[in-house]
Order: sequence, then structure tokens, then C-alpha cells
Amino acid sequence: MIQTKPAPPIAASRWFNTDEPLTLEALRGRVVVIEAFQMLCPGCVSHGLPQAGRVFETFGRDDVAVMGLHCVFEHHDAQTPTSLEAFLHEYRIGFPVGVDARDPGVALPRTMAAYAMQGTPTLILIDRKGHRRAQHFGSVPDLRLGAEIMGLIGEAPER
Amino acid sequence: MIQTKPAPPIAASRWFNTDEPLTLEALRGRVVVIEAFQMLCPGCVSHGLPQAGRVFETFGRDDVAVMGLHCVFEHHDAQTPTSLEAFLHEYRIGFPVGVDARDPGVALPRTMAAYAMQGTPTLILIDRKGHRRAQHFGSVPDLRLGAEIMGLIGEAPER
Amino acid sequence: MIQTKPAPPIAASRWFNTDEPLTLEALRGRVVVIEAFQMLCPGCVSHGLPQAGRVFETFGRDDVAVMGLHCVFEHHDAQTPTSLEAFLHEYRIGFPVGVDARDPGVALPRTMAAYAMQGTPTLILIDRKGHRRAQHFGSVPDLRLGAEIMGLIGEAPER
Amino acid sequence: MIQTKPAPPIAASRWFNTDEPLTLEALRGRVVVIEAFQMLCPGCVSHGLPQAGRVFETFGRDDVAVMGLHCVFEHHDAQTPTSLEAFLHEYRIGFPVGVDARDPGVALPRTMAAYAMQGTPTLILIDRKGHRRAQHFGSVPDLRLGAEIMGLIGEAPER
Repeated sequence: MIQTKPAPPIAASRWFNTDEPLTLEALRGRVVVIEAFQMLCPGCVSHGLPQAGRVFETFGRDDVAVMGLHCVFEHHDAQTPTSLEAFLHEYRIGFPVGVDARDPGVALPRTMAAYAMQGTPTLILIDRKGHRRAQHFGSVPDLRLGAEIMGLIGEAPER
Repeated sequence: MIQTKPAPPIAASRWFNTDEPLTLEALRGRVVVIEAFQMLCPGCVSHGLPQAGRVFETFGRDDVAVMGLHCVFEHHDAQTPTSLEAFLHEYRIGFPVGVDARDPGVALPRTMAAYAMQGTPTLILIDRKGHRRAQHFGSVPDLRLGAEIMGLIGEAPER
Repeated sequence: MIQTKPAPPIAASRWFNTDEPLTLEALRGRVVVIEAFQMLCPGCVSHGLPQAGRVFETFGRDDVAVMGLHCVFEHHDAQTPTSLEAFLHEYRIGFPVGVDARDPGVALPRTMAAYAMQGTPTLILIDRKGHRRAQHFGSVPDLRLGAEIMGLIGEAPER
Repeated sequence: MIQTKPAPPIAASRWFNTDEPLTLEALRGRVVVIEAFQMLCPGCVSHGLPQAGRVFETFGRDDVAVMGLHCVFEHHDAQTPTSLEAFLHEYRIGFPVGVDARDPGVALPRTMAAYAMQGTPTLILIDRKGHRRAQHFGSVPDLRLGAEIMGLIGEAPER
């Protein structure tokens, strides 16, 4: 999936674990790994988020930026930012996490819709030029993910 | 820990997965397994609750009653009954779950205090006569738990 | 499977981790757990033998005797007693292990045939009176096994 | 560890799962992953060999060659080629496996000595030019290994 236009922007209404909101524009030049999750999604808790944590610990921060994105499309009253904050604390998640912005009366949050995600967990890879290069719904093995990220690290950044 | 007086009553403000509130009195004659947990406690999610689910599936309902007890002593705004209900749905927890009752301005809920629990997960075993026989804070291996429960099943009920 | 006659004797040609050969007669009065395995059987290595080790560590030696039984029915040249000895050392197996005796030209060893085992791993439970009470081919969950063993411990020994 | 001279040759006395003996010379141009193991080494069985199998399944055969190398330095009578053959069959190992050659009276086999391996499992990465680039004793996480292999795949082959 090589696309000629930049990936859709991240529409987050709030951020945790970062002083500044993250934007793909500001991260241009780095590979960006986006872990789209819901705090009450069992596959996100047991697999997706721990994997994103391993990516965060394994690669250099200058090469790879990791962000979580809380894409709530169900149980909106249960998965509030207040609950998310406690969740991130209890699960010791250290990378930046944004809350995908919702429009009133719309179940699907904005970034989730813009990326046409099918559910959670979804792992998205953005290359150094800001183009979306992979989008995995469900689980992707560590070995393959490590190879995919390293393939993107090896590419020349935009001039 | 063999005690000569009945275990403290379960003080629950709300129940899920059951039409009737559960009481130790009504369960007298059966072995009762209480899984005290918090929905945002990683050890509860990865170990305690799945183990309670296995107990629920393994033993006969006439011999063993399993209940979860949501003992929230931190992050009260995050671990509300609304959030708990979504959690139970997403994690497909089928056994009855009570919400440990809180008094205004008191962090520790009532049953947790009455049993002097140290934290979550805590697994409590009540014998057929209603006496508390074991209280495990943290994780207890399945093999040992299976033996403990079967030991209590083998005891004669109260006459 | 309650049987009225004693379980077939263990026909072992050699023993490891014990000074004396084990016999069911000498173990009468205790619950006996027999883990029938082959050293090159993946399910035995990953599941059956570690489980037998947990049984050995969990229950009192006066109540429960654990033995391994090397029931080689294939790859006889590869799974020799010499190879088995190194295997037991490397996998730090501490309970007694017998080598199921073979008759010349017969693939199936004697105890395996006498118990009509279907393959490995097979876990066999013998009660205090020496009667076979369970025989599990494949894997049995720890919770259920703990309960089964405790159920047999609770029975009165033969007078 | 970038070295200016080619990696030591593989000294194998026998091969399984291949019609032709493998040589680093013939594999020049591909990344080579060598899994040095012993069939009775628990860490090799539970971690190293399954990981090598995942590498074998994940990367293209034109880019990455995987080989096992049975580096027996203890229990020589137990870990014979006959036992190894049964082991490879039972564990369904499909990639080529060589038996590291031993000189009479020398415990350490030749390739293991030439590479100064400290034990098993050891995972070695050879680049497209035939130079040794990494040597991991013990376990290396899949995510990091995937990245290391992909980094070597991205390098230009020898001209």
C-alpha cells in the first residue's frame, strides 16, 4: 500500500504522556507507528498495546515514533478519558496516547473513519515521508513487524 | 485458617449476571469462590478473572458457586459500574459479579475492609458451612486451587 | 472408571532418580500419578512433564507419589536409556522415572500395552487402594487434575 | 560486529532436510541465519528452534537462508545423528540442519569452536557478502531479530 498523498492527519481531542499534541507533520522524517486501540478491547490489552510498548523500547526515538490512539467506537460512556487515564497508569503505558476526536452523535471517531479502520487493535505504519504504508487489523507477529519497521527506517527521508 | 464464625457477609451495591443478589447465607451448603478484582488491575485481567472463569466451568454448580466482587479502592471515577458493565461484556465474563459497596468518603469498600483484603486480585474460599477457609492475595496456581476446592467439596455440609 | 481389581503392575527395565525400583504394591496407601511420556514427544516436553513436576512439588510425598514412565513405542534407536538420562538431567526432572520394558521384536512396551494407552503423553491416576481411576491421553488442565488428585487423597485407604 | 573477512565456513559432517550440503559460499548474496542448537537443550527447544522456524516462514527464500546447526558439546552419546533425525521429525523442523563436525577426542565441535560460541542456543547472522554481523547467545526478541534481518536484507550484495 504505497500512497502518493500524505496519510490523514491525527484528529485527537486530548493527549496523555506528552506535553505537546503529536502531529504527523511534526513527525515527518521519522517512521510513525500508530497503535489504535480501545481500553476495553481484550486483544488490544493482551497483544496490541504490549507490542507497541516493545516497539517503543526497541527502536531509536529519532528513527521511530510510537503513539497510541484511543479509537472508541462502542461503550462510549465506559471508555472515557478519565477511565483511559487510569488505564494508562495501571498498565504502565509510557508512550504518547491521543484520544481520537468524536463529533456529536457520531459513533465512529474521526481518525478511525479517515483511515477506514475495521476495528481494534489496528496497527498503522507511516513512512518517513508521511505516507501510510501498512495497516494491520488484528495481530501481526513481532518478527514481521520488526522487519516492516526496519524496511521503512532504511528508506531515505523526504528531501 | 479455620474459623469458628461465619465469613463476613458480601456487601454489594449492585449485581451483574444474576437476577437475584447473591448472599453467603443463600449459598450455604456449597463451596463459594470469591474473586475480588478491579477492572483496571492487570493481574486481575490476565490471571485472576480467567482463573475464576475456569473454576466456574470446571466444577458443578451444585457444589461450587463462583462470584466476582468488584472491590474498587482506587481510580473510583474510572472504574464505575458503567465501565464495569462494558468490561464484563467485552471480556465475556459469565459468572455473577457484585459491586462492593462504598460508604461516602471512604476509599476502601465494605466487603474488602471486612475481609481485610490487601489488594486485588484476592481469591477467597468459603466452605459449605459458610466459614472462610482460604484467602489468596496475588496469584495461586491452578493445580493447588483445584485441590483446595476439591478438599472443601469433600467436606460434609452443615447439618 | 472405578475398577474392582488392582491396576496392572509397572514393568520397568530400569529406573532413574530412585535407588529402589518403584512398584504399585509398595506405594499402596498413596495416590499414584503416572506420567507416561517419550522424550521426543513435543506435547510431553512442553506440557505433560512440567505438569507432573508441578504435581510432585505441590502435594505431600506421603499422600501422592509421582513417577514418570518412558513408554517408547517409536524411534527406539533415538530414545534410548542413554539419551533419556541426558534428557532428565537437562530438563531437571527430579521425580523417579522408569523405562517401560520391551519384549524383543515388539514395538509397544509392556506397561503401555497392559494399560492400553493410546499414545503419549498419558497421565494415569491410581487410588490409595491400587485401583486405576483415571487415564488421560493428551492434556488435562491443572485445575481439573488438582481436583481429581485431591478427590483421591480424600478417600480412605485400604484397610 | 562488522568484520572485513568472511565468516568461518560451516564444518558439517552430515545434513538433514537438504539434498546438498550447505556452504556459506554457495549462499553468498543472501542473508544467512544460523541457529546453533542441541536437541536436549531446553532453551533451544522452547525458544531458539521455533524462532528459526518463524524466520524460515516469514522471509523470502531468495533473501534469507535459514540453517540449523547441531553443535553438540556435551552428552555426545545421547545426542547422536540418529536421535537428531527422530527429533527433527517429531518437532517438524523443515529447514536444513547440519551436524557440526567433531574431531576425535575433542568435546567442542569445529564450527562452534571457529565461531567461539559460548553455548546453545546461539543465533548467528551472516550478511549478503558473507560477513558475520551478529551472534546472539541465549534469546533475542522476535521484534529485534526481524529488524536486524531486514537491515541486512536492505544492504547491497557483493559486486
